[in-house]
Amino acid sequence: MAELKYEIIKTVAVLSESPKGWTKELNLVSWNGRDPKYDLRDWAPGKEKMGKGVTLTKEDLNHLKTVLNEMN
Amino acid sequence: MAELKYEIIKTVAVLSESPKGWTKELNLVSWNGRDPKYDLRDWAPGKEKMGKGVTLTKEDLNHLKTVLNEMN
Repeated sequence: MAELKYEIIKTVAVLSESPKGWTKELNLVSWNGRDPKYDLRDWAPGKEKMGKGVTLTKEDLNHLKTVLNEMN
Repeated sequence: MAELKYEIIKTVAVLSESPKGWTKELNLVSWNGRDPKYDLRDWAPGKEKMGKGVTLTKEDLNHLKTVLNEMN
């Protein structure tokens, strides 16, 4: 991960926070200077470390929205 | 990861599929026999390998739903 550069373009939402202060966030992130993608991931306080996560396209998010709206 | 046991209780949705056949899925997964959690992750064809991902509580999903509905 040493060479991985990223820039958080926009924090869309902070979904939750763990007792140790890690936050589960939906962000718009540019990896290595490429076009930004949506990214759902845990972050340590102050963004000092990142947890595992998934990148998502706008289409993924639209699909997910439909699914979540049908879930309850 | 050798000792990690999991059971996919329910596939909620397949959000997308990569050219190599990996699928980005929202599942309800039980890890090591514990109570199932929602899990957003990439999977290799036939579930032979798992990619990185995040676990999500029902509250996370509800929050995410609200956020996605407000995004467009």
